Amino acid sequence: MTARSSKRIELTILSDEANDIAEAIRQKIADNNDFKDADGHPLLALKQIAQCPEDINPETVTVLLADPDLASRIIDKCSALTWCQSTWAGNAPLLNADKKNYILTGLKGIFGKLMREYVFAYLLGHARNVKAFEQNQRAAQPIWEASKRMPLNGQTLGIAGLGSIGQALIPVAHALGMSVVGLTRSGQAVEGADAVYTPDTIEAFARACDHVVNLMPDTPSTQNMLSHEFFSALKPHSVFVNAGRGSAVDDDALLQALDKGALAHAVLDVFRNEPLDSAHPFWQHPRISVTAHTAAESQPSDVADVFLENALRYINGGPLNYQFDFDKGY
Amino acid sequence: MTARSSKRIELTILSDEANDIAEAIRQKIADNNDFKDADGHPLLALKQIAQCPEDINPETVTVLLADPDLASRIIDKCSALTWCQSTWAGNAPLLNADKKNYILTGLKGIFGKLMREYVFAYLLGHARNVKAFEQNQRAAQPIWEASKRMPLNGQTLGIAGLGSIGQALIPVAHALGMSVVGLTRSGQAVEGADAVYTPDTIEAFARACDHVVNLMPDTPSTQNMLSHEFFSALKPHSVFVNAGRGSAVDDDALLQALDKGALAHAVLDVFRNEPLDSAHPFWQHPRISVTAHTAAESQPSDVADVFLENALRYINGGPLNYQFDFDKGY
Repeated sequence: MTARSSKRIELTILSDEANDIAEAIRQKIADNNDFKDADGHPLLALKQIAQCPEDINPETVTVLLADPDLASRIIDKCSALTWCQSTWAGNAPLLNADKKNYILTGLKGIFGKLMREYVFAYLLGHARNVKAFEQNQRAAQPIWEASKRMPLNGQTLGIAGLGSIGQALIPVAHALGMSVVGLTRSGQAVEGADAVYTPDTIEAFARACDHVVNLMPDTPSTQNMLSHEFFSALKPHSVFVNAGRGSAVDDDALLQALDKGALAHAVLDVFRNEPLDSAHPFWQHPRISVTAHTAAESQPSDVADVFLENALRYINGGPLNYQFDFDKGY
Repeated sequence: MTARSSKRIELTILSDEANDIAEAIRQKIADNNDFKDADGHPLLALKQIAQCPEDINPETVTVLLADPDLASRIIDKCSALTWCQSTWAGNAPLLNADKKNYILTGLKGIFGKLMREYVFAYLLGHARNVKAFEQNQRAAQPIWEASKRMPLNGQTLGIAGLGSIGQALIPVAHALGMSVVGLTRSGQAVEGADAVYTPDTIEAFARACDHVVNLMPDTPSTQNMLSHEFFSALKPHSVFVNAGRGSAVDDDALLQALDKGALAHAVLDVFRNEPLDSAHPFWQHPRISVTAHTAAESQPSDVADVFLENALRYINGGPLNYQFDFDKGY
């Protein structure tokens, strides 16, 4: 297919990984006629490529592919901006900016495949007690022993946040013989989830689960949503995974719940302040696993793929994928 | 459904877990009319329950539910035996006994759900580099760092041995975006496997895989099947999981392959001699994970379920599930 519209893109890339993303885009469009007009002229040109906002001339920015934290520092000055493709799934830094008269699209459709590996690596590692076997092996005198295990098969996985990432967990849970329940703002039915709860019924949600994964976006209504009441309703064998946003968790409530045995283990990838301060008690807690906001970290090639699919839609005047709603905040 | 036949079972249980299995059976048949005749008399009676072969009177054994290693010590004296339900998937100890004029059934249909959790716990743990994040967290000064990861998504899982256990891995692999290839004695097509190799083409099999799980049974033809040639054909990023039988692996070839970087890691649950001798180099190797033949360890309730389903078939004169072929050896 050759693009028929004359809408061209002059792209600005502002990202920690700007050079890698630019290189991936160059390679992917090199032999692709969709990005050339009828005369063979390119419909997508890389205009500014920078890792620092200071290196960007904001007034000439029309289409922006950017890390939201960096973009938020210049967005109000980008008077000619029509479309910004974010390199993140969440967009809180841009939500808080004044400028809203442009199309903001998120990076979606690629995180699910990464997230499901993260979540099940930790849930299965806990179920199979990998750490105990490792300790037995590395003991001064190795120990041949059947450490305690508790199969995921037959258990119920709770997923708070059933967007594209949350839904990507469902087929894996089912393949492992787990049931799935969800929690969403609307409570509307989701295929593969036996029940969908709402924030009003979060304790019933917690009681229905063996293990819970939080993937809720960072919005005003999710602040401290995972509180004392939530953690107290979990099971002593429950694993809690937070790979949504750190602001959803009441840190003290989680620590107290772990210490009194209201749940077995917490796996935390996101925090109120990142990097997590080295003095934060999460680091030292024996029943918390800390990762570095890496659960679904995208690669430059993934960013390029999502951008280019939307770029084709932009060039051809079609609706863009993964548009951000400034009112809803996600 | 009420049993219509008059075939009754007088059961002998010989197992390390004889009491737990007996208790599970009693509970499961207590209110089940399938195990009573038209007059309400029981069709299944527990006659002998023992953990030691010495406590069994072999001449009165007709139906036996037993650990194969214990059963092998009395089987030749069980002249009235008609059926033995094994508590194991493999049956090498009984294969080597003289007596063969009885029906031997294996414990199957329950290991798949346990095995898939074991295999993917270790494959995902490696893919997500759980150990590096744990080391970063537990360092004297915790380290916030994106340790190296390599998604399973898009990779190919090789499964040597595609019986009921091996096939149970396929839906999980697919749910994680992996392709599957297999290796079996026959090379016949298996649903969900893109290709099925044979022992003659084991090097091509190894080259086709990113990661390999061995689940082949313990037969004369699988001895040392996983040799220098096999390991050398793997990829430097490959993980090798042995949850079949230890005799399939050439131990020295595996150690040499790991040391020269022909593969990344080995996860070993089974060994030539178990428990694994504390002086064996597998224990100390930094790129080997040792578990204690616990990958698919059944619970007494699982054993009772498989036995009772077959017991109903026996009572009603139907063909038994999971019959062992003394000629084929599996």
